[in-house]
Formats: sequence, structure tokens, C-alpha cells
Amino acid sequence: MPIITSEQRQLINTAYDPHLVREMGQHVAQSLADHLTKVQSATGPVLNWQDPPHFIAAATEQLAKGDVAQQSLDPQDLILRFDQLIQQSLASGQNLHHPHYVGHQVPASVPLAALFDAATTLTNQVMAIYEMGPWATAIERAVVNRLGQAMGFAAGQFGGLITSGGSLANLTALLTARNVALGDSWTHGLAARSPAPVLVAHAEAHYCVTRSAGILGIGTEQVVRVPVDADRRMDPNQLDEILTDLRSRNIPIVAVSAAACATPIGAFDPLPEISDVCRRHDVWLHVDAAHGGAACLSDKHRHLVAGLELADSVVCDAHKMMFMPALCAMVFYRNQEHRFATFAQTAPYLFDPSAPGMAEYDNGMINLECTKRAAAMGLWGVWSMFGQQLFEAMVDTTFGLGQWFYELLKEQPDFQPFCQPECNIVVFRYLPDKLQNSTPAEIDRFQLELRRAVVKSGDFYLVQTILDGRSYLRTTIINPLTTEDHLQTLLDTLRTHGENIL
Amino acid sequence: MPIITSEQRQLINTAYDPHLVREMGQHVAQSLADHLTKVQSATGPVLNWQDPPHFIAAATEQLAKGDVAQQSLDPQDLILRFDQLIQQSLASGQNLHHPHYVGHQVPASVPLAALFDAATTLTNQVMAIYEMGPWATAIERAVVNRLGQAMGFAAGQFGGLITSGGSLANLTALLTARNVALGDSWTHGLAARSPAPVLVAHAEAHYCVTRSAGILGIGTEQVVRVPVDADRRMDPNQLDEILTDLRSRNIPIVAVSAAACATPIGAFDPLPEISDVCRRHDVWLHVDAAHGGAACLSDKHRHLVAGLELADSVVCDAHKMMFMPALCAMVFYRNQEHRFATFAQTAPYLFDPSAPGMAEYDNGMINLECTKRAAAMGLWGVWSMFGQQLFEAMVDTTFGLGQWFYELLKEQPDFQPFCQPECNIVVFRYLPDKLQNSTPAEIDRFQLELRRAVVKSGDFYLVQTILDGRSYLRTTIINPLTTEDHLQTLLDTLRTHGENIL
Repeated sequence: MPIITSEQRQLINTAYDPHLVREMGQHVAQSLADHLTKVQSATGPVLNWQDPPHFIAAATEQLAKGDVAQQSLDPQDLILRFDQLIQQSLASGQNLHHPHYVGHQVPASVPLAALFDAATTLTNQVMAIYEMGPWATAIERAVVNRLGQAMGFAAGQFGGLITSGGSLANLTALLTARNVALGDSWTHGLAARSPAPVLVAHAEAHYCVTRSAGILGIGTEQVVRVPVDADRRMDPNQLDEILTDLRSRNIPIVAVSAAACATPIGAFDPLPEISDVCRRHDVWLHVDAAHGGAACLSDKHRHLVAGLELADSVVCDAHKMMFMPALCAMVFYRNQEHRFATFAQTAPYLFDPSAPGMAEYDNGMINLECTKRAAAMGLWGVWSMFGQQLFEAMVDTTFGLGQWFYELLKEQPDFQPFCQPECNIVVFRYLPDKLQNSTPAEIDRFQLELRRAVVKSGDFYLVQTILDGRSYLRTTIINPLTTEDHLQTLLDTLRTHGENIL
Repeated sequence: MPIITSEQRQLINTAYDPHLVREMGQHVAQSLADHLTKVQSATGPVLNWQDPPHFIAAATEQLAKGDVAQQSLDPQDLILRFDQLIQQSLASGQNLHHPHYVGHQVPASVPLAALFDAATTLTNQVMAIYEMGPWATAIERAVVNRLGQAMGFAAGQFGGLITSGGSLANLTALLTARNVALGDSWTHGLAARSPAPVLVAHAEAHYCVTRSAGILGIGTEQVVRVPVDADRRMDPNQLDEILTDLRSRNIPIVAVSAAACATPIGAFDPLPEISDVCRRHDVWLHVDAAHGGAACLSDKHRHLVAGLELADSVVCDAHKMMFMPALCAMVFYRNQEHRFATFAQTAPYLFDPSAPGMAEYDNGMINLECTKRAAAMGLWGVWSMFGQQLFEAMVDTTFGLGQWFYELLKEQPDFQPFCQPECNIVVFRYLPDKLQNSTPAEIDRFQLELRRAVVKSGDFYLVQTILDGRSYLRTTIINPLTTEDHLQTLLDTLRTHGENIL
């Protein structure tokens, strides 16, 4: 008796049919090209807004249709259904490639990266051990080496890895720092340890840094925040005072977490000075350069991250300023031996004791992830085609536009930039005459309402932030197709929606 | 003065050119279809083995070529280069779609899933907040709801999320359990806490469970291992004794971590009995069902995971027995309110205080990841096209073949299965006559050498494990195109390579 029915066999064979892969692959390539053409020319809305229950019901309905037994397995019917599902998805998303997308630190990614990615995703190249993804391992090594050297780390001495996202990358580096700083915390845990250790962090560190303290058993209230200076950069003098005080009280210090740049306004910490302080106090320096790390690829902007190579660990997200699709986050260790301080475990079915040299290439030894995507494929492919020059060009245009937009805002009587930007994050408020007699709370509320109106209209996508208790509009110019004209239009759009609200 | 040079502008415009997306998309579709046709027909090697330095040098060389200034941006040259890079990558990987791939718990994934994924990757649909990925959020909700109900959770009462991999999923669930069990550990950390808390786990839990204890500040030596019975399933009576003892000593218990199934031989824990014990002692029950959870989709095999719906948290990897490409790991909470116990933080620029209801749909509130891939897209698309029947068929054929292979091994005088399998993981040894006078250590060594020879030859891909100190060959039948004939051939292949070694 066969193990499965002939209907089941036919269903499997259809789902794995190479002819359908070719046909549907060509259809999706066409759909994506058409979609990009439309979106990149600023046609249609940026965000296709619908309330969550509406979209969830629509997605659920499609699953239910799939469950109806005796679906047709005719190729033409399947291709039609495939096209419908793809069209529905494209019509329901956030259009980051629209030049009016100036929102979060998530880029309009290089489209070709996704085509490279499709090759490793379809063939399911994964890592944990070298055997399961030899090429995936090789390309990861190649891009980590290349970027680490561009940051200034010494070839042959530094090491690194790629993981799924900046939060996980920061957690991994801080876990390593914890294990190095606290000795037996990996095996014995943090209980019964007194005095309680602390993590010292930039006052405006990304929330994932504080979360890491919560996850790692340090405690979110055990995060000591270093005040920022007038430019919202970590103040090395105050850091020195904090570390002196902690050391004098024998409080264990897991690490100092600096930022290049910090999220709210994109301020870059003075890394050489901070590194000096950390070395004097013998404290691990971690730099969250998720956003700004890629500045090292630009002659014009490299100065912003000078000193990155002095850090013990650095995080850089290729899915931010290297314009890769999510997720491709890198962790760098100045001393490559630290890679093996993150975990200290064996799994006999994974790491072959009969081939000990291979563990050096088994990603699972140093990565929180076991089965792991070939996340470097898009970056490796795009870099191999266009070189560092492409990344430099994208940093230059978006950082340059940030400056240009600031100058534009300064000239407007009804707009007020928060400060001069160092990169492509620009924070400002819209303050028309009609708000002259409004209270600060009313002005804050107006910024939020204005943003929500613009976002729901689909005219632009921008975000908001709170600084010193006040609400601001916040843009990240992270689509290299955005131009001066689009930013000029943004001001007009804000004025129009503002009129409607007031 | 323009912000960037005209050369830089041209480089960017080329990298974002929709025409190239269409052309290259069609090329990669063709390449992938050809590759699948070849591999699925068992032509060529399973694994393309090369030593790591060789592949790393090759990957690095391509990056350097990309860096050479003044590359041609002629579309035909670019397409040629693209094709070369794709061909090199396809020729250098692990061919999971080869029916002789019977290795780790990583599937020959449904190829069409990658085409759906390409649409969300190219358009870079991400999550953290609903606005950034409204459709990505909706499809994640839809598949989590659908699978949770298939597991037996009560609609409207359970909740869940998708994250990047089983290790991260288990960490997330155990972090939630820690915060629930230990009160203020999130804010205050674990220091100065006495007695030290413990995590109670299956003696053969996946290494990521022990790692979670190390990460979360509990400590890997604070993992209390519950002995397994003769079938290597967690013994509920011994669990009861352990919990009774811990409670009598007032030792805080983070959770009990059971397995469905455990990695080494694929044994499924008796969940109803374990759940009874946990409830009596008021302890959080976590079930790592990364591999076996999908059995709930099969009428024939659902009984293996009976009681899953009694757990407080469950992890199931769609990139294992739902045959999705990496990564799509799900966490389920029986009580959906527990989703918000994992973290307790605000980030003003992410979570809008002016729209508090939206936080329910902001994935970052409950997910360790901030920017997150639309990891559900492949699963949603394939499910919507082929329904639950496809997943059932794939579970049935692979689990059924596991049983069939065991029967085959039993009939062979020179092979020895370790035990009757419950699913698609089959462990055995090859013991030809020539080993009659060999020592146990020699026999162990032979299994490892045999495996390495077979793997490097590319004839088959299988793995190894150590059970009770002895080495075994281990297969996971996780390619739905693998048939009885292929497994018969595996035995012959092992005999041939074994001859060569002895």
C-alpha cells in the first residue's frame, strides 16, 4: 500500500513543480517591475491604509479559500490564483519605494537584492553548521570582512557575524560583554550576585538596549543612563564621572553602550573620547551603529564614525543605510576570540567532534540563531555588481538631502527644525500662524494629528518623536530616489493638511 | 550644486531600474526552474563540498570585482554578471531538494513560498508597528490564528507571533515565563535573588533551551534536567518528584520545558500527563514543538501532539514540518495576555500615544525583533493556494517514510535501527561483518567516518548523533520528493562507502 494517496502525491508534485516555478517566477517579476515603475514615479499612495481588522479578515479569507478541498490543480488556474494573491499583497502594503516615503529607518531597498535573495530562499540555504550552507557561510564571511575593514578594524584580528535584526545583534554583543565582564554568569546566572551589575548606556539609546538589560537578567532599572550634551551626544566627561563612581563602589559594569547614531535625531557620539574613558576604566565599549555604521563607506561622511574601530563590539544593520531589505544585521568584535564568549555549549548532532577545525566555520557556535537564513546574499550580490561606490552614493544623497532639507526648513517662517542634522534624520515642527495662541499641549497634539492625517491620506509617510517632552515630526530620508522637489512638496502637503485640521 | 555627482545618480538609478528587475527576475526564475529540475531528478551531488577557505576566497573575489570603479552599467553586461553570480551560488550550495537529502531538520522547502517571499522582500515590507507593514501584520495574524486553532487553542483566547527562528522563539517564550514566574525580574534583574531560580527541562532538550537559561541570567547550570523514560520521553513521575522537591525548598521555577518532539530521535513527550503535573505545582509549561507541531495538521499523526493546547506556551517552526524556507517560527500563548509580559517598555517614536488601540497590532510590543521581515508571506501564500491538505500530505509522506525506513532497516542483517521512530527522524548504525572484532570506540569512529565520506561524495546527505555516549547515523526524511527507492539506495551507498573505508 502506498504511504500517501495519489491525490496527496499529486498535490505535492504540483507544489514542487519546476515549470510552475518558472511561470510564476516570470509573473511575479513582471508584477514587481510594474509595481516599482508605478510607485517610484510617485503614482498612488505611499501607505495603503486600512484598519487592521479589515486586512486581517481579508488575509484570513484567502487561507479559508485554500482549505476548500478539491482545488483545481490546473496550472493556468494556479497561476491566476498566484497573480491574485500577489496583486492583493502589493496593493495592501507600505510603499517604501515611493519617493514620498520619508519615515522610519527602514530603506527603500535595492530591488535587485531581493532577486539574489530569492535564489537562496528558494533553495533554502541555511546556516548553523558549514555543511548546511557552505556558500551562505562564505558570502557572510566575505561581506563581514569587507565591511569590518572599511570600519577600520584590523584584518585577521576582528571577527563578526550576521543575525536577524539590530535588536538581536545588540543583544548578542551585550551578552558577550556580560559574559566577559561577569565571569561565570553564563553557567551560574546572575542570582545571588551582589552588588548587582549595571549596563551603562546613552541616555537616548534605542529601546532594544534597555530591553537587552531586561532579557539578560541585568534589569531595565539597572541601566545607568549617561546624559547627553547640547547636541544630544553622549558626554564623555559625564561618562567618566559615572564610571569612576561605579568603580569606587565596586559595582560590576557589563558595558558602555554608545550610539552612532542615536535614534531620536541621529546624533553621533564622540567615539575616540568615549573609547579613552572606557579603556581607562577597563570597561567594554559597545557601539550601536545600526544606522550610521555605513557612513564608513563614504569619503564625505566617514568622519562621523571615526573611532568605531576602537570599540570592543559594533552593530551595523545593512538593512538600514546599506539599503538592503530586512534583515541583515552585523555584529563585529575587535578581538575575534570574543565571538566564542557568547555561548559555550556543545550539541553533538551539530558540531562534529571528529572535525574540530570546522567549528570555526559553524555559525551556530557564535550565533543565537541555529537554523539561519543566508541573510548576506542580497548584500553580497549587489556589492559584487555595483561595488562600494553604490553604497557611498546612497549615503551621500540621503545624508546630503538631510542637510538640504534642514536649510529649506530654516527658510520657512511656519516651520521650525529641531536642530541641524548630522545625517538623514531631520526633526521639525509645523507652526502656522493660527497656532500663535495655542498652548504647548495643543501644539503637540496638532503635530500628531497632522502626521496621522498625512499618513492616512497616503500623500507622504513620515513619523513622529517626543523630545524633552514635546512632540515633533520626524523624517528619515532613506529612499535614494527622493529629491529636493519631493521635500519641497512635503512642506506644501503639511500646510494643506494643517489647514484642514485647524 | 547637485548633492551627488551625475555618475552617482546614474549608479543609483541603475540599481533601482524596474526594467532590470523584470529582466533579471525572469532570468533568475529560469535559472531556479532549471536548477530544481536537475536537483529534484537526483542529478548531480546533494552537497557541493569545498573546504571553507576555498569558498570564502571565491566569494571575496566577487566583491572585489564589484569594487572596481567604472563598471559598465550597460543592461546586457549587468544581466550577464547577474547570471554568473546566481549560477555560482546555485552551484556552490547544499541541495535540499535533491531526494537524497535526508539530513537536518531543515526541509526541501515548497519552492513557490520563495516567490511569494520575493514580493514582500523586494518591496521591503517590515513590521514593528502596523503602519510599516499593514499587510505583513495581517497575514501573520491570519496564519497564527489558523495554526493555533489547529493545535486546539481556544479562538479569541490564545495569541501568538512569528519570529526569526526556533531559538529566538524558545527564548521569547521562556523570557515571558521568567517574567511571569519571577515578578520583577524584568526591571530589577536576577541579582540579589536567593535562592537562585531554575529552569526545568527535558533531558534531551534542544541546545537553545539551555542557552536560553544562559542568556536570561538563570544560568546553564541552573537547568534541572528531567530524566527520560525507555522511549526517551520526559517521565511525568520523575517530573512530579523534581517539582515537589523544588517547591519544598522554595526554589523559584521559571518553567518546565517539554518537547514535541525532542531532537535526538524525535520522541514526543506525553503532554497531558506533563500538563497535569505542571498545573498541580502551578508551573508554566512550555512545549518546544518546533519540529512536531505541524503534526496537528494531519488526521493520521495529530495524536502525537495531543495536549499541546494545555501548554502555556508552544513554539512551532513553519520552516521545519510545514516545509517553508527559513525562517518562520511561531510562538503561541494559551492566554493571549501573556504576550505583553515579555517586555514592558515604551518607545515614543514607535508606539503612538495618540492611538493607543493600535499597540495591539504593533508587533514590536510583543516581539524581540524591532524591524522584522514579513516572515509569514510564503506560508500564507502557499496555504492560500493549496490549503491544509498540502501540509497534511507532506507530514503524512515523511512521517510514513520514517516508519517504512525503520522496517527496511530491521530486515537488514548489517544495519541496526536505534528504535522505532514516531515521526520522520530515524537513527541507526551500519554494522557490517568486518566490524565483528572491533571495539565500541572503533565502531563509533567508523559511523562518523562513513558519514563524512558519504557527505563529501555528494551521494547523500545525512547527519550523526551521539546517544548514551555512542555514535549513530541520523536521517530526517524532510524532502517530500524522497521515496522508498531513494532510501533503499541509501543503504547500498552506505555499504559501498563502508567497504572503501574498511
